[in-house]
Parts: sequence; structure tokens; C-alpha cells
Amino acid sequence: MFNNNLTNLLKIDFPIIQAPMAGGITTSELVANVSNNGALGTIGAGYMSPNQLREQIREVKKLTSTNFGVNLFVPGKFEILENEVEVAKNLLDQYREVLNINEENITLPNMENAFHTYKEQIQVVIEEKVPVCSFTFGIPTAEEMKQLKQHNVTTIGTATTVEEAILIEKIGMDIVVVQGSESGGHRGTFLRGNEESLIGLMSLIPQVADRVSIPIIAAGGIMDGRGLMAALSLGAQAVQMGTAFLTCEESGAHPLHKDAIMQSKDGDTTLTRTFSGKWARGIKNKFISEMKEHENSLPNFPIQNALTQSIRKASASQNIKDYMSLWSGQSGTLARIETVEQLVQRIMDEARKING
Amino acid sequence: MFNNNLTNLLKIDFPIIQAPMAGGITTSELVANVSNNGALGTIGAGYMSPNQLREQIREVKKLTSTNFGVNLFVPGKFEILENEVEVAKNLLDQYREVLNINEENITLPNMENAFHTYKEQIQVVIEEKVPVCSFTFGIPTAEEMKQLKQHNVTTIGTATTVEEAILIEKIGMDIVVVQGSESGGHRGTFLRGNEESLIGLMSLIPQVADRVSIPIIAAGGIMDGRGLMAALSLGAQAVQMGTAFLTCEESGAHPLHKDAIMQSKDGDTTLTRTFSGKWARGIKNKFISEMKEHENSLPNFPIQNALTQSIRKASASQNIKDYMSLWSGQSGTLARIETVEQLVQRIMDEARKING
Repeated sequence: MFNNNLTNLLKIDFPIIQAPMAGGITTSELVANVSNNGALGTIGAGYMSPNQLREQIREVKKLTSTNFGVNLFVPGKFEILENEVEVAKNLLDQYREVLNINEENITLPNMENAFHTYKEQIQVVIEEKVPVCSFTFGIPTAEEMKQLKQHNVTTIGTATTVEEAILIEKIGMDIVVVQGSESGGHRGTFLRGNEESLIGLMSLIPQVADRVSIPIIAAGGIMDGRGLMAALSLGAQAVQMGTAFLTCEESGAHPLHKDAIMQSKDGDTTLTRTFSGKWARGIKNKFISEMKEHENSLPNFPIQNALTQSIRKASASQNIKDYMSLWSGQSGTLARIETVEQLVQRIMDEARKING
Repeated sequence: MFNNNLTNLLKIDFPIIQAPMAGGITTSELVANVSNNGALGTIGAGYMSPNQLREQIREVKKLTSTNFGVNLFVPGKFEILENEVEVAKNLLDQYREVLNINEENITLPNMENAFHTYKEQIQVVIEEKVPVCSFTFGIPTAEEMKQLKQHNVTTIGTATTVEEAILIEKIGMDIVVVQGSESGGHRGTFLRGNEESLIGLMSLIPQVADRVSIPIIAAGGIMDGRGLMAALSLGAQAVQMGTAFLTCEESGAHPLHKDAIMQSKDGDTTLTRTFSGKWARGIKNKFISEMKEHENSLPNFPIQNALTQSIRKASASQNIKDYMSLWSGQSGTLARIETVEQLVQRIMDEARKING
């Protein structure tokens, strides 16, 4: 029941993947503990420099001898429109004031640099012989795929629609993560608009399963053995969980972030592009609510992300949750503060019990 | 596995409920065939007069001696704002023109009448000794609940959030339908806004299951044995399926409606309030797209519903799908044209196979 093509491919005991969460949440301790407990830990490397990534890979290797993965953001084209940036900056000034941020110049992202960094990240993955690499926000090129395959890196793509999943199989990736509308954090959508790709897992998993033959990992709102069993019933071979691992003791999430999830109710999350310019699900707070009316005129990712960076940082360091991005899936009430070991064991116990 | 409190309570062999679909889809043949095949058929009576309802109940009784249900829309307060109605009427004029509709006066709904009709519908349910009555868009009053209980009517409420499910249990209803964001047709939401109540079943079922003790029926995007097994794993005791029964041979849905579902892909549906003034999920078409920009200024249900009635009717009778409300859940690609008997047997076969 719990061991299949996918667990063989990833060399894991249990069909559980810790979702990549960028921005310091996936500490080496979290990643390694997940892998040491029979699931797959993943370094959320989206915002890391190649050197930072290399460093963390080496750190994780010291803590575990089992398989683990790295997740990369596939960069997209973007253009900096001066006027748009100016408007966004002016809107954000009130928050810099509230948080006493003195920022002379905001360094805006550079598209060439972004592509260059991404290519270097892939080289680090290959050089450090990381066994598994997952991709979000897009798919690798044919050339990149060829290189990854040559070096025996198991590749995972992220899809939010059937069409994206088919494309991921077509370019030769080994596994597809199917991200439902329930999931927290950034949407992985890369072919269609946001609304058209908000599909609940109950609908999305079986429709993808009917169209692709590579193994499916289900992601979105899954927190326990019930979710694991449901995902397997629908045609997935494993689950990927973000929020559930975010509140684990080993996670590097800010205490206020963990707290916000623990106190949240169903329906307390919303989709927003106010923080980064890309749609993401998080717990509603002052920043999201106030910026909502300007949402559609804000710059795209990663420009808006750069513009809000100091605000998010200052908010976190000053322990004010109003301006932090409190990413969370829709199942906040099912979160627990526990160790990775307790979480993995509990899920498997619950799943075995349901399985009878 | 498949028989539980809920199947006992509803006196059905299989944990499958045919969702109430108003507007002529739930023909007596459909309802009776569902019940005759061991599941629960439901008359979608939302738009029926008390007499029409009585007639169909009697017709169904002639076709089956097993349990079936009636679904009622709980009316809410509404106010006709002349200016708002005028603006909407003007926007809709173009469609009356395209469809050659000559309509001197549109009869607008009257709130007192709506409440009166609903009370009479309840009396018909009681007088005709219908064993099961489900409610959408709200909950019965304490007095209505008392009367229904005195006459041994098994009551089912519809919830889209944990809060709504808790309230449904609190007022003494026997069963709760948990409607996920995947589901087609009207949202049952009655306590919160639309966006806050768009929760995927993977998240919603377990969170409700942890908070209520009455049996849960899962609704939204469920089309086959995989969905049934997933729902049971998550803590539901049965599934309610609309789209899957809508394309059955016995359903009264317009051929173009069935066709639109059969040809739809994941992500082809959208949430819209352009047809009725209440949020509902359907396949995108010309009407929805063109009216989208005015969506938030349209009158509330059931006013907008009355304003678009002749347009929907004429569109259907002229075989033009552009202006019909093509309600559908998010799993269109899983729909099949088959008989109710084939559908119910297939689901149970698939579920048994997954269950091992």
C-alpha cells in the first residue's frame, strides 16, 4: 500500500515528501530529520545564492546519509516598468514608515542575473550529487533536462493543471507534484491564469492520473493519515506537505508564523499577490487586506518580492505579524507543534489504521 | 466499509447521494433510478411551486418504493433596489435582442412570497411523508426543525465551512453535506463571504470531521470510486454527486449542457454570480465572460435569477449554449454518458477494488 514506484525511485520508506518552503523555513535540521525518519526532506532553495545552496547541501549531508532533495524556482521573463514600480513603492512607503525602515535604494532584480543564478544552482545540485531536484514556477529546458539525467538526478516538476502535468511528463521528468487549490505558499502555475488553475485535489489528482503515467505526488491541505489515504485513493503515490512540516519543532519558520497557523481557522487564508507579485496562499493580515485593492496593478514576481523584502524582514524581526507573509494551506486547524519524528510516525499510524 | 450510520439512517445500500440539481435536471426517472439502484435520489425542488413539488413526489413514489429526498432552498432576505435592477436590465437587453425575446414585463421576486412558498414546500414534504429533506442556502428555523422531527423527516444541511457545519449540528439536523470548492452549481454558503468559503474537500472534510459528530456527506468534484474512497478516508460517510449524475441518460439536463461537460477540461469552470446573483460554478461561456466586469454590481439572488430567466430559457430552446448556465464541478473530464445503474455499479466496483 505505502511502497510503490515512487518510494523506490526516491529511496524512501514512507510516501511523504516535505514541501520545499523558501525563506529559511527548511533548516538543515528539518530536512535531515525528515529524511532520517524515512520521508524525503527538501531544501527550499528558491531564494538562495549558489554558494548558500552549496553550503546547506553540505550541512544536510553531515546530518543524514539518506536521500534528500533541492527545490529550485525556474525563472521567468520579467520587465521592470518604472512607473509601475514607482506606484508600488509609494504604496509601500507607509509600511516602511510604520516599521522605521530607512532604505535609500532598493535593489531591483535583474533578469539576466536571475537566469544565471538558476543555472548555477543546477550546477551546484549536480556537483554536490544531490539525488533529487524539484522545480517550481516552470520547467527546465531540454538541455538542462539532459544534463540532469546524465548525472542521475531524479527530477520532479510542479503542476497545477492537467495540461502542466502532461508537459512535465513530456519533457522527461520522473515525477509530478500535483498542487491543489488548497495548498499554501506560491502557486506553481506556469501555463494558465491563476483562477483557471485553482483546482481542488479531489478533482485534480484523478484527472491528472488518467492522463500521465509518471508517479504523482499530491500537495495541498494534506496534514495527516486521512489526507495521505485520500491522496493514494485518488491516484497519487505520495503526498507533499508544507504547512504540516512548517509547524514542526525543527522548522525555521518564525514563531509568529507558527502561531498564526496554530490559531487559524478554515477560511482564514486567502490568495494574494501583494507580497511577491505571484499568487500565493497565506493567512489574511493587515498588509494583505490593505493592499488588496491595488493587487492587480502591482509589479510581477520577483519585482514586487524585492520591493516588500525589507518590510517582511523588519516585520519579522520586530515581532509584528501584520506585514509578514504567513503562508499556509487551507487546513490550519489540523496543524500541530511536534517533532518531525512524531509527525511522520503519526501520519503512518493513522494511515495504517484507516487502511485496516 | 461502505455501510455505516449514514447508510442506516438513509436506508440505502451504497453511500452515494444524487445531488439536488434544480431546474429540471432531477427528473422523476433519474431520482427513482438512483434510489432503485441502492443510492439516494433527490428532487431538486428549489424553484418548484408547492404543487409542482407534490406532483413530482407522487410521480417518484410510483417509480420507486425505496427512500428518496427533496432539497429546498432556504430563502434569505432581499431587497429590490430599483436603480440596481434597471442597470442589470439594461445590461441584459443585448441578450434579449440576440435571442429575439419579447418580454414586456419581468416579474420580480417578492420576498414574502418566497418565504411563503418555502413554508408550503415544507408542508408538502411532511404531508407526502418524504423520508429525507435537505436544505441549501441556509438552515431551517427552530420551529421548522421541530415540525420536521415530529414527522420523522431525516434532515440534511449544507455547509461550506466548519462554522456552518457546527451550526447545522447545533440546530439538530441529522446529517451535514460538506460542499468543497470543487463543486458545481450554487455555493451553499450562508455565514461568510464567497472567497472565505472556497475550501477544497481535502482540507474541509477532515476539519469538519474533527468538529461535528453527525455524519458527513462529501460533495464537490467526486465522480468515481476513487473520489468515494478518498472521501471516506477523510472522514465522510458518503458522497453526494451532481455532475456525475447530470450526464446520466436519465437526467433531464439539456443535451448541450451534457455535451459541454463531456468536452470540458479541468480549469474550464469558473465561479460566477452573473446568472442568479448567487455564486455558482459553471463552464465558462460567452454570457459569463461578457458579464464578468459587471459581476459585483448585479442584484442579489433571486432577483438576478429572475432577470436572466427568459435568457437562459430561450438560449436552451434555441440550442445556443452561449447564454445557458452550464453548471459543472471541476472534474468534467471524468464524466461519462451512462445509465444510473452503470454509474452506481461502476463507482462501487472501483471503490471495492481500491479498498482491496
